[in-house]
Amino acid sequence: MDFDSFFRDRLGDLKSEGNYRIFADLERRCGTFPRAERHRPDGTQEEVTVWCSNDYLGMGQNPVVVEAMVEAVRACGAGAGGTRNISGTNHHHVLLERELADLHGKEAALLFTSGYVSNWAALSTLGAKIPGAVILSDEKNHASMIEGIRHSRADKVLWKHNDWRDLDRKLKAVGDRPKIVAFESVYSMDGDIAPIREIVEVCEAHGALSYIDEVHAVGMYGPRGGGVSEERGLAHRIDVIEGTLGKAFGVVGGYVTGKADLVDFIRSFASGFIFTTALPPAVAAAAQASVRHLKHSDAERHRQRANVAAVRAALDARGIPHMPNESHIIPVMIGDPVKCRMISDMLMADWGIYVQPINYPTVPKGTERLRITPGPLHRPEDIDHLVNALTALWQRCAVAHAVA
Amino acid sequence: MDFDSFFRDRLGDLKSEGNYRIFADLERRCGTFPRAERHRPDGTQEEVTVWCSNDYLGMGQNPVVVEAMVEAVRACGAGAGGTRNISGTNHHHVLLERELADLHGKEAALLFTSGYVSNWAALSTLGAKIPGAVILSDEKNHASMIEGIRHSRADKVLWKHNDWRDLDRKLKAVGDRPKIVAFESVYSMDGDIAPIREIVEVCEAHGALSYIDEVHAVGMYGPRGGGVSEERGLAHRIDVIEGTLGKAFGVVGGYVTGKADLVDFIRSFASGFIFTTALPPAVAAAAQASVRHLKHSDAERHRQRANVAAVRAALDARGIPHMPNESHIIPVMIGDPVKCRMISDMLMADWGIYVQPINYPTVPKGTERLRITPGPLHRPEDIDHLVNALTALWQRCAVAHAVA
Repeated sequence: MDFDSFFRDRLGDLKSEGNYRIFADLERRCGTFPRAERHRPDGTQEEVTVWCSNDYLGMGQNPVVVEAMVEAVRACGAGAGGTRNISGTNHHHVLLERELADLHGKEAALLFTSGYVSNWAALSTLGAKIPGAVILSDEKNHASMIEGIRHSRADKVLWKHNDWRDLDRKLKAVGDRPKIVAFESVYSMDGDIAPIREIVEVCEAHGALSYIDEVHAVGMYGPRGGGVSEERGLAHRIDVIEGTLGKAFGVVGGYVTGKADLVDFIRSFASGFIFTTALPPAVAAAAQASVRHLKHSDAERHRQRANVAAVRAALDARGIPHMPNESHIIPVMIGDPVKCRMISDMLMADWGIYVQPINYPTVPKGTERLRITPGPLHRPEDIDHLVNALTALWQRCAVAHAVA
Repeated sequence: MDFDSFFRDRLGDLKSEGNYRIFADLERRCGTFPRAERHRPDGTQEEVTVWCSNDYLGMGQNPVVVEAMVEAVRACGAGAGGTRNISGTNHHHVLLERELADLHGKEAALLFTSGYVSNWAALSTLGAKIPGAVILSDEKNHASMIEGIRHSRADKVLWKHNDWRDLDRKLKAVGDRPKIVAFESVYSMDGDIAPIREIVEVCEAHGALSYIDEVHAVGMYGPRGGGVSEERGLAHRIDVIEGTLGKAFGVVGGYVTGKADLVDFIRSFASGFIFTTALPPAVAAAAQASVRHLKHSDAERHRQRANVAAVRAALDARGIPHMPNESHIIPVMIGDPVKCRMISDMLMADWGIYVQPINYPTVPKGTERLRITPGPLHRPEDIDHLVNALTALWQRCAVAHAVA
């Protein structure tokens, strides 16, 4: 086989569809976020304002987090030096796991190298190791859950997005087998929030194990940042709460929390946990500082919500359509990959605004969008500038206002 | 189903087999490695000497690496803030990828959150996306490769460990389909090294894509730390060289290198790359500093090799059997999980020596072992102390000297 031309041709297909991805080469500058330095392909640089970060609360540059990380690097060095089992467990991992168990009111927590790996490893282990298990998965679940379920080779049943009645019917149809229900609280690309109470009640009625992904909610929702399940007083009724340290907490890594034996079971059998180097102690220390800070501080959440509301109001005032939802995510639908990239490029080149085009496979083809995530550190003039830019582009590009 | 008792029972099985894992809770102290503070379960602490770290060269505390990490945390903050596509690419990632491509003499490199993810994502993408592909996998390949191949659902053919003649026969039997040959340079648990030249020649003869895992070799072998493939002058004949930043380079993360289109293909299609938060910029900066340092400095490699030879000679002098191999890994076979744990516990309690017992599933049942990894920072008196301790235990535990 001619591998070279195979790879070249597939890349050519992506390019002709408009789905070839070009990464913006940024340099985050601590203290000035959401501003960043962008390195252009020609080697020159420009300042941009980032409007699509998942560092939702700016915790990545919070002095409490930065200093905890610096201190731990100086104290413990750069890396962990091994898998968790073979010399890689550092006291900072232990402390962080306690902090996370407490965050969700659970007996135990287990750290993974990423949120992706936590979903993939936890679901693939539960699905593969519980004999006869069936996993019932919300049809819009994240790739990490889909791949984990696929990897488990357990039977899988998709249920209609956020439709607990459909889940109820499908749980009943499964009958007397071990059932695992996997869903998210905040869906990242549409920003809608699951009817968690109804889903949990359906799970309880059928004796199903409930597994919620709160990656876009931890740190952001609930009085201590425990996610939507905390905000709605439901955390104690959910068996597994999964989260990330790489979005609102501003660092990197993922985790699951639950009863001690369940977490120990995953710890003991998950290949993606066992056979991988532990996160650097300094990453764990930084994440713990961030989680602890957001348990007590509401200031970041308040300022962020105010800015989300301000952006929405300004978009409405200019007639720029955006998808309504209950969360902090503002999707502005474009519906075409080439236009989406073009608008993003113009925002960057002409306005110093960075909003990455969201194309397939992150969203289904035909639903390409800009995904705007206002943070607590955007200023009123940043919001004006963003909305002025979008308004000008909406006119210039003749993108119909009603396109969404 | 009663999930609680299911999990409890499975954990009970592990405990009764002697395969339940207890992590040593360590605190690495920068500047004193391989010494570390161990937190005992009762809350007290003790100093231990680590003899099982994969921070093979002590780069995790090398001032060049630590300072690069601190500087980047202060400059860029704690986290990347997004996936590589959505605001998470930082200039430090770009620089590190260039450094890694150069390390292996390849056109391009791609970073992953871990070595595990790099193997899993690269092999699952190649296997799934190349129509009709067959993956020929050395039977002792690491879990991350096994799971990646499994996930791809491509046809898989196992070939006998390090047996290029068997590989040749099996490639011939596959016939005219796209063929991918996956193997390692240094096998982590036995420490043996693959006959890379013969394997590469067999791959070339059959037009197979060659994929080598050099995670236990990068930084350690070859004049610039490019691995065994560099040492033997074969890097340019291998299509994909995969490595880690979490072992000899002392940080965390994984990567693949190869031709630009191949790497771009993986970048464009690998779920485990696309849908995950990028590594912190400071991790990339630290890793780059480490890679760059080991391209020019041989001192760490020389001291480590001298210590490996010294430990082997001291073990031989006392008649303590260890598995012979060409690498830096010294397996001392025990052959029983309970004894292996017991010896490890006694080393820790009575001698302040930490060598984790290596049990199933990391090694096959019946081949339980201590895996000793001397580093450049172990002192002659550390070696004496280790060998004295093992000698005393060998007598006390009546473990037959000829057990291996």
